[in-house]
Amino acid sequence: MTWHPVYREVVLEPDYRFASAHLLPHLFDALTAHAQSHAKSGLPGATEAVTLLRELRRESWPPYDPAIEDVFFSLDRRLASRSPEAAGALRTALSRNDLDMAIYRLTAREELLRAMESVEKLRGVLLNLAEAEVDTVIVAYTHHQPAQPTTLAHYLTALENVLSRDSDRLADALKRLNLSPLGAVALAGSSHPLDRDFTAQALGFDRPVENTYDAVSTSDWQCELAGALSTCAVTLSRALYDLLFWASRGLVTVADGLVQGSSVMPQKRNPVALEHARTKFSKLLGYAQAVLLSSHNVPFGDINDPGPDVQEPMRALWEDFRQGLALFTVSLEGLRVHRERFLAEATTGDTMITELADTLARTSACTFRDAHHAAQQLLANLRTQGRSLCSATPTDLHRLGIDVPADVLTAALDVHAFVNRRRTFGGPASDVMRAHLQMARARLSHDSTRRQAWLDRFERARRALKGAA
Amino acid sequence: MTWHPVYREVVLEPDYRFASAHLLPHLFDALTAHAQSHAKSGLPGATEAVTLLRELRRESWPPYDPAIEDVFFSLDRRLASRSPEAAGALRTALSRNDLDMAIYRLTAREELLRAMESVEKLRGVLLNLAEAEVDTVIVAYTHHQPAQPTTLAHYLTALENVLSRDSDRLADALKRLNLSPLGAVALAGSSHPLDRDFTAQALGFDRPVENTYDAVSTSDWQCELAGALSTCAVTLSRALYDLLFWASRGLVTVADGLVQGSSVMPQKRNPVALEHARTKFSKLLGYAQAVLLSSHNVPFGDINDPGPDVQEPMRALWEDFRQGLALFTVSLEGLRVHRERFLAEATTGDTMITELADTLARTSACTFRDAHHAAQQLLANLRTQGRSLCSATPTDLHRLGIDVPADVLTAALDVHAFVNRRRTFGGPASDVMRAHLQMARARLSHDSTRRQAWLDRFERARRALKGAA
Amino acid sequence: MTWHPVYREVVLEPDYRFASAHLLPHLFDALTAHAQSHAKSGLPGATEAVTLLRELRRESWPPYDPAIEDVFFSLDRRLASRSPEAAGALRTALSRNDLDMAIYRLTAREELLRAMESVEKLRGVLLNLAEAEVDTVIVAYTHHQPAQPTTLAHYLTALENVLSRDSDRLADALKRLNLSPLGAVALAGSSHPLDRDFTAQALGFDRPVENTYDAVSTSDWQCELAGALSTCAVTLSRALYDLLFWASRGLVTVADGLVQGSSVMPQKRNPVALEHARTKFSKLLGYAQAVLLSSHNVPFGDINDPGPDVQEPMRALWEDFRQGLALFTVSLEGLRVHRERFLAEATTGDTMITELADTLARTSACTFRDAHHAAQQLLANLRTQGRSLCSATPTDLHRLGIDVPADVLTAALDVHAFVNRRRTFGGPASDVMRAHLQMARARLSHDSTRRQAWLDRFERARRALKGAA
Amino acid sequence: MTWHPVYREVVLEPDYRFASAHLLPHLFDALTAHAQSHAKSGLPGATEAVTLLRELRRESWPPYDPAIEDVFFSLDRRLASRSPEAAGALRTALSRNDLDMAIYRLTAREELLRAMESVEKLRGVLLNLAEAEVDTVIVAYTHHQPAQPTTLAHYLTALENVLSRDSDRLADALKRLNLSPLGAVALAGSSHPLDRDFTAQALGFDRPVENTYDAVSTSDWQCELAGALSTCAVTLSRALYDLLFWASRGLVTVADGLVQGSSVMPQKRNPVALEHARTKFSKLLGYAQAVLLSSHNVPFGDINDPGPDVQEPMRALWEDFRQGLALFTVSLEGLRVHRERFLAEATTGDTMITELADTLARTSACTFRDAHHAAQQLLANLRTQGRSLCSATPTDLHRLGIDVPADVLTAALDVHAFVNRRRTFGGPASDVMRAHLQMARARLSHDSTRRQAWLDRFERARRALKGAA
Repeated sequence: MTWHPVYREVVLEPDYRFASAHLLPHLFDALTAHAQSHAKSGLPGATEAVTLLRELRRESWPPYDPAIEDVFFSLDRRLASRSPEAAGALRTALSRNDLDMAIYRLTAREELLRAMESVEKLRGVLLNLAEAEVDTVIVAYTHHQPAQPTTLAHYLTALENVLSRDSDRLADALKRLNLSPLGAVALAGSSHPLDRDFTAQALGFDRPVENTYDAVSTSDWQCELAGALSTCAVTLSRALYDLLFWASRGLVTVADGLVQGSSVMPQKRNPVALEHARTKFSKLLGYAQAVLLSSHNVPFGDINDPGPDVQEPMRALWEDFRQGLALFTVSLEGLRVHRERFLAEATTGDTMITELADTLARTSACTFRDAHHAAQQLLANLRTQGRSLCSATPTDLHRLGIDVPADVLTAALDVHAFVNRRRTFGGPASDVMRAHLQMARARLSHDSTRRQAWLDRFERARRALKGAA
Repeated sequence: MTWHPVYREVVLEPDYRFASAHLLPHLFDALTAHAQSHAKSGLPGATEAVTLLRELRRESWPPYDPAIEDVFFSLDRRLASRSPEAAGALRTALSRNDLDMAIYRLTAREELLRAMESVEKLRGVLLNLAEAEVDTVIVAYTHHQPAQPTTLAHYLTALENVLSRDSDRLADALKRLNLSPLGAVALAGSSHPLDRDFTAQALGFDRPVENTYDAVSTSDWQCELAGALSTCAVTLSRALYDLLFWASRGLVTVADGLVQGSSVMPQKRNPVALEHARTKFSKLLGYAQAVLLSSHNVPFGDINDPGPDVQEPMRALWEDFRQGLALFTVSLEGLRVHRERFLAEATTGDTMITELADTLARTSACTFRDAHHAAQQLLANLRTQGRSLCSATPTDLHRLGIDVPADVLTAALDVHAFVNRRRTFGGPASDVMRAHLQMARARLSHDSTRRQAWLDRFERARRALKGAA
Repeated sequence: MTWHPVYREVVLEPDYRFASAHLLPHLFDALTAHAQSHAKSGLPGATEAVTLLRELRRESWPPYDPAIEDVFFSLDRRLASRSPEAAGALRTALSRNDLDMAIYRLTAREELLRAMESVEKLRGVLLNLAEAEVDTVIVAYTHHQPAQPTTLAHYLTALENVLSRDSDRLADALKRLNLSPLGAVALAGSSHPLDRDFTAQALGFDRPVENTYDAVSTSDWQCELAGALSTCAVTLSRALYDLLFWASRGLVTVADGLVQGSSVMPQKRNPVALEHARTKFSKLLGYAQAVLLSSHNVPFGDINDPGPDVQEPMRALWEDFRQGLALFTVSLEGLRVHRERFLAEATTGDTMITELADTLARTSACTFRDAHHAAQQLLANLRTQGRSLCSATPTDLHRLGIDVPADVLTAALDVHAFVNRRRTFGGPASDVMRAHLQMARARLSHDSTRRQAWLDRFERARRALKGAA
Repeated sequence: MTWHPVYREVVLEPDYRFASAHLLPHLFDALTAHAQSHAKSGLPGATEAVTLLRELRRESWPPYDPAIEDVFFSLDRRLASRSPEAAGALRTALSRNDLDMAIYRLTAREELLRAMESVEKLRGVLLNLAEAEVDTVIVAYTHHQPAQPTTLAHYLTALENVLSRDSDRLADALKRLNLSPLGAVALAGSSHPLDRDFTAQALGFDRPVENTYDAVSTSDWQCELAGALSTCAVTLSRALYDLLFWASRGLVTVADGLVQGSSVMPQKRNPVALEHARTKFSKLLGYAQAVLLSSHNVPFGDINDPGPDVQEPMRALWEDFRQGLALFTVSLEGLRVHRERFLAEATTGDTMITELADTLARTSACTFRDAHHAAQQLLANLRTQGRSLCSATPTDLHRLGIDVPADVLTAALDVHAFVNRRRTFGGPASDVMRAHLQMARARLSHDSTRRQAWLDRFERARRALKGAA
């Protein structure tokens, strides 16, 4: 077969290179499991195929040869040159359809575990930082305006909480990914007896994909992964907004090794690591679309679309995800938090006014609805006089027909008191937060254990397939 | 407050209309639960608020009034006109932030259950049709070329299998959606004592969102839903490709009530229901992007982006999903399957050749690798002679140095035998398929029960909030 | 014909309602032009058809009738009841394929002109504001850090410049949109003689789409529009980022009629008009995807996908675009610019350091490269001493081995001088800017004239078709 | 400066490698033009800088050095080691902001010209094939059903017509892309005198970007390119649908060098080149989103987002576009068209019925509306009798009350006559088509000339900058 030079250049050669760089261990694993299954049922040549596959995987892999279609046929040819019978056994009841799909799932689950680890690592850093900043009062903004005092720990644990749901989403996706397509052959299975449970188990899969047509055709697990990674990326893009907003105003400083200067502006220390993390996530959303759209309006039985052709954007997806998380994580690890500036913003603004309204509602006869109104009036009066909220006195309130003792007023305008009075479940008061942190740590630990168990299982499977102890 | 006419026209009025049309029951539910919680802790006016809310929800809802900001303040005003104290109690430790997020989650879970029901309904129709077509031999295509005989049931159950994973994805999403934001107030909780578990339970939520900042800010559950619906839409777009391909060639016919003719071409019976289903799903992917992008690169604390502004594309998403599924489902329900044409295609083509190669490998001394090569040769020779595969004789094979008894050859070229020999787990052989169908039915039944349990819980919660028995 | 209730509910009825609300004038226009063309060639009934169409368009339009397929057949039936011959003439050499595509193009060009007008209006407001703020010094940020002093006018005209290219993009799109599909009939034209130039001209189209198959099938002009609107939306999302950043820090204030408060935080004045503009543009990107994806991987001859089914997201696209621009425009119109706060930020920071380096390179013997280094040193020394750049003295520089006269140093650290020294073409110096503004105004005026000419042409065509003077 | 290892690994090193592989010629061009501009105004060291830059570009480029930030500083350092004064001159009034944007535009215009060439090449192949297939009757499908006979040339020229608008879109994009950002420096220009027209002209730009802030900040031209390429990709995805549909049914065959077989199904000749073209275009839509989203909701002044970070998806976009077009083009070049099978489909179906209705309307006294109805009746009667349309006789029509001479009926049912009677402008009749082809060829020739003129200009500019004759 002689392929058109264009076809070689834009399809066969890049696919060969891609597979050589990224897929070989999974190719060998899948083929070895398949050969073992034949060996178990006594197919001549199968045991030899297992042995030869273990040999070949230790040898160096040949570069692209224009005469050979792909890595499968490259291996097939080398195997046949050593033992035609072994090669014949290996080809029995096997198609590149089920083989490739097995390889892509094996690759994806490896990447997925790495992604899960990245998320856990970031969650750990968030919890550490939160622990250190339980008493760091910040002004939370809503609608781009100062809203209420809370703590940096409250913000950081909120983020960790969302990420813990991302961990769950990824774990849920793994359940649907970790299924074996082997034995589906072209799509209809085979007239040759096949033990799909055996190959599934040998490869560390949970079980076979139930329907063989489904096994070679579906792209749902890739779309689900694209969706799960996008969901996480969107959340992190929002946190990056806030970090960059804080960095803009000097409330936090990114470590020296993560900033770049300017060739023309000598004063510049740009928090570029955060910016690059942002674009990693923006691009990720596009790569996720690439994965999805490759399966949009194409036949269910089309193998290229959810198969080889989508591996490049899948890889871009995994890499952008991991790189974005890494940049985010190291930026947080080395982050200098300027607590005094955060505090200064909190104490000089008007954000304690909510508490004042709450206090009025609690201590005077009025409802919260009326207290809210009175607080707005007070603020308007103070502004007219060029005064800020922290200068408010009982007299100011008296003029509005409300009498509040001085100590009550003072307490209402204290930002630390504001925060520590917010003892609602999930709120920022320091002891509530410490309990919250403990729960979050336990959950993170559970998630890491869960991931580690999968990793151990997959590594055990590989060791057995490679013939190691 | 007088709003700018443009702001009224493009934000306030459409939001009011949207909320009036879609959100009111959830608004009343959430407020009632909040008032009950205050009543429990003895806040003056709270019990009255519960009563008045139950009254007001039975009255007709006022149209848009340019002087009033939104549905919340519309209700607040009406409540205050009946009892200022009740209105004051209701406003205590409540923000539109936590209230709105509760409403959006309540709306979404209702829509999600409807979406899950649509998926189950389609799965049921697929299994029914599969049951009827267990012995209907079709040619499965890969790469747009005839690949292998299999059965229509095999195809249909493959699709049902993917959809069963969609059911799981939606159920997994519900776990992360069905959490209560109430009690988060603006974002930091309140200095007023609040029982978040109580309101969560009253509304049928699994539990409160753990962190109050997370509660009002996160958009992860909406992104997850957008991803889950997109994943399902992509799968169905692929099945629509095949159905339209079959309809193009007269293998299936869509029922009369689902076709349209032409104003100029008298012969036309266009399977438009399938086409419109396809575009519903295409558009859905865009609406999903709208949901995702509304939260891309915006502050974590920004409430409008994942809140009111994203409800319109969320609704478009739900509607397109449900409508696309409905069109797909009714098209299948009334589908005429032309079994004889499917069979004719299978018997006149070359797709049994795989089985012939398998047979050669099994019955002669050669490996599958050599058998594959011989089969290709045979096909080439027959084509040169203008003959099709079904006319092959032992003599044709003898010329290639292979001797096969006539009955073995005949059996190898029989499409029904082809299918029934494929007894691999998940393959099309009729008894294997019947067992598969039984499993699939059990799984569907489990999924329906699971959904129904949620539905019952949510309906019980509503009845209690409305004050019904 | 009795349609399936589901098909009626999710396709026929919403399509009828949509067409009744949005497409009727274009339907009448296109049909009238078609009938006129037949009248010209003497087809019996055609002249009467013209007259009757003019009558019918003045009558009220009937509501949805489940027995009738769509608006075309509704009109066909009413016409036939008055004159079967006229109805027959109208149906001659006409298909809903070419008719619908004509209607969609007529609708789109109307919307496009409105979109172009919105862009021009915003450009005008930007130039007005720029004119007023030629001397308003601001600190431009890059990488989320203060970079250099420039003027608000410089920023605003930069934005206007991008928008002027959007105006060009939209005008370029109009060239490819304003082509007539009429006469393509189903797709192959007709054996009946047809004057496609006549109908094109009657409808104000530039000319017919050259190939009749292309005429009914292509979706390129819709994809181009989706792309052009997205491009503009992305630019505006960036400007919104900056406006909200300024609003966050009190540098600008949005007018009262465009802010919303909080039900719980009495101090809040949220610049919500800007936020809602942002989400309009975010959603627009999703709607643009919906338009694009409806034509992705579907047959070239499929009429539903780029036809009726894509009209809903097309409309969402136009509306979000117009609404987003309206919110942006009115926000700018009423914007309070706090010049003194902008100036304060500029004078107290380090951003004049670039000019100092330039000055050193110009006045001492060193290169810019060395001057840049010296400036960094100076800044480091000052920071160690807790001093800001504006306190720098010749002595500070002398310590670095550089001698600069005091007046030169003072001049180098003056922000107004910084700006006015930047006389590069396109820079912020006030006279350079004033010349720039004049050019921008001329360009805007040219663009408005261009749009108005189109509008006049289209309105003349409609008046003639309606039979008005 | 020591960067964090993560920052090096995920940002600095890949950026350096990317720039080394793809951007260097443009880097040297832009710097040389900048240096020439300084030389012209007599800045010491500038002339030497020009000379040294010409030397350095001929030397081999150094690999990544962890101590150096990027390619700019790598070059800066090498230049300074040869002549500090030249290096100093080069750094004067230059920022990586304006430099990078110039480089990205130079790169993009080169890629754009290549993309335009690919489109023209495909258009040429389409016209050649159309020329050969002017009389090849095919059945055009609408709504996935046979619609009308037309010719393959009609289909192919329709596609070429859309592509000619893509050529225009790309040319329009070039107008807005080919503008020089040089002289904007950081964003505000410089106090140093700069001749922006000179550098623009030296680099073959049409003129400078008018506003310097715009020059370094805007991403509109990249978004426009992403939109234009997406628009073309969507059109080609639709044509691929049809080609694969034809290939599925044996109407066309892709050349041997562009098919792949199966490892398990011996009969397979998969038209994979077309499939891979399809996924190239699907992925392209995702990459286009990546480009767009990188600028979504980020500050106008942020240079990384539309700058270095978006170059990777931009490149993926260009490559997928070119590769998809190449696969499409070579597939068409070697396409075997099975005219007899196309014809057989046309003659045995019902698609001539439109012409029959037209004939009835023309020759009998009835309107088209009635003729359409009669034709439907005839078809229904024939189907009941198991007959196809080509067997219809005057007697069949007589029974419906319509009398048509036998020769007229025969003519009405002749597919070639059907086609050749469609002499509408833009229709398939062979002489109409030949005239159409001539126009199309002239337009293609014009477009190639236009592109070539740009190419010549850009190459002349480069030669002059390199110091060649």
